[in-house]
Amino acid sequence: MKISVSFTLWLLLGAVFAEVSTDAGQAQLKTEMDILKQQQLVRQVAFSAGLLAVGQVATIGPFPTNTPLIFKHVPTNIGNAYNSNTGVFTAPVRGAYHFEWWIGAVGDGRHSVLAVLVKNSEGVFTAYESQTAGYMSASNGVTLLLEVGDTVFVRLWAGHRVYDDGGHRTTFSGHLLFPM
Amino acid sequence: MKISVSFTLWLLLGAVFAEVSTDAGQAQLKTEMDILKQQQLVRQVAFSAGLLAVGQVATIGPFPTNTPLIFKHVPTNIGNAYNSNTGVFTAPVRGAYHFEWWIGAVGDGRHSVLAVLVKNSEGVFTAYESQTAGYMSASNGVTLLLEVGDTVFVRLWAGHRVYDDGGHRTTFSGHLLFPM
Amino acid sequence: MKISVSFTLWLLLGAVFAEVSTDAGQAQLKTEMDILKQQQLVRQVAFSAGLLAVGQVATIGPFPTNTPLIFKHVPTNIGNAYNSNTGVFTAPVRGAYHFEWWIGAVGDGRHSVLAVLVKNSEGVFTAYESQTAGYMSASNGVTLLLEVGDTVFVRLWAGHRVYDDGGHRTTFSGHLLFPM
Repeated sequence: MKISVSFTLWLLLGAVFAEVSTDAGQAQLKTEMDILKQQQLVRQVAFSAGLLAVGQVATIGPFPTNTPLIFKHVPTNIGNAYNSNTGVFTAPVRGAYHFEWWIGAVGDGRHSVLAVLVKNSEGVFTAYESQTAGYMSASNGVTLLLEVGDTVFVRLWAGHRVYDDGGHRTTFSGHLLFPM
Repeated sequence: MKISVSFTLWLLLGAVFAEVSTDAGQAQLKTEMDILKQQQLVRQVAFSAGLLAVGQVATIGPFPTNTPLIFKHVPTNIGNAYNSNTGVFTAPVRGAYHFEWWIGAVGDGRHSVLAVLVKNSEGVFTAYESQTAGYMSASNGVTLLLEVGDTVFVRLWAGHRVYDDGGHRTTFSGHLLFPM
Repeated sequence: MKISVSFTLWLLLGAVFAEVSTDAGQAQLKTEMDILKQQQLVRQVAFSAGLLAVGQVATIGPFPTNTPLIFKHVPTNIGNAYNSNTGVFTAPVRGAYHFEWWIGAVGDGRHSVLAVLVKNSEGVFTAYESQTAGYMSASNGVTLLLEVGDTVFVRLWAGHRVYDDGGHRTTFSGHLLFPM
């Protein structure tokens, strides 16, 4: 029986060893799965905002200095990264973000429509149009790699103006493309 | 031998118990993996459409009432959520979707170019421009949280008009950002 | 003891068999996990570019023939799929890609602003505006299913022109929506 027992114990040790190995592999898979699930969740950052609250009609500007536009009508703010009190989007995770802004105003030959997307304090791209009459519209878009806490907003240029009403013509949108 | 056998059985029970525990963990991992894979698949919703079929040149409108624009030239319709017979996009899954629409028309001082993105029956954002001559172009974009079955389309405003030709200037695009 | 040993071995075989089955399941999970992680990584393709390098101001065109626009100011080029020497984006993986381009120029009644997004050698959608004075802006966007190696660029139409300066008004952006 001595040989038989030894053989049995040998098999058992092998099984236990395989078990430990399997458990380690499974623990690593679980860790990786949790990272993937977390990445799926943090992807959920997207907002869209119109300049004026529902029911309002106004031309904003011209101002003597560059002035942030504070978009007040916020139909979408998943992840709550856009602040409608300040007009500022703050990146909640490091990643690539896409932004677009559309602006418009009545053309009078003196005040064009011009707004710049600003990352932290630096201008990035510009939306601009000028007409002597009618209604001007302009826009632009950009993808930026943002660090956690980087801020993005739309700056109305000094001497220019934008219009908005219940149709929501002057708008600002952004979303996370992917975390990095 | 009695002791030895008891010990052997004890080890075996431990191994079997660990096995059951490992299997349960693995089953859960498999379930989570299947959910992730499914989420990757349902992400695949994206379309782009130009107003007129290839070979056509036309100005659409003005109409006495608001009228849906039916974009007929569809180079991309992954997930088949856009219907080129009705002009309507229907959300196949709950999630955040991004839409953009570009419109244009010859300026004559009487008919501006104006089109509103509509979610179900409610106007969201507006693309608008007005010129007395030349060629007007306007656009807008928005991200919306849609429930399964929510519909989105572009509405040409009463009294306004849009132009398109083989270059595809008047277009409508949308895609799923992430399911929720 | 013979019965007891047989029983022991039987249990052991069962344990070993379950082990093999668990390992196979885990290997498959690991394979699927690796695919998912790889898909997350290849998603990281996004660029944005302005027409002129920082410090430059110029009107490009009109040219007698259609001419690719080479966007020189590249604040974002994640995945390095956009080539600022040629102006060409080359798809690194099969998938759905979204592109947007914004153009502008001074209106003089003779040279409008017109640029077409080109996939390989085929025009896709057009950005166009015309004014007799002021400053014209136009744009368009599209989502395309690209195969590996497919190329996309913006083509300035013969006889038209675009302007850019340090504000970066004429721009080109694109990113992968999802691999397929």
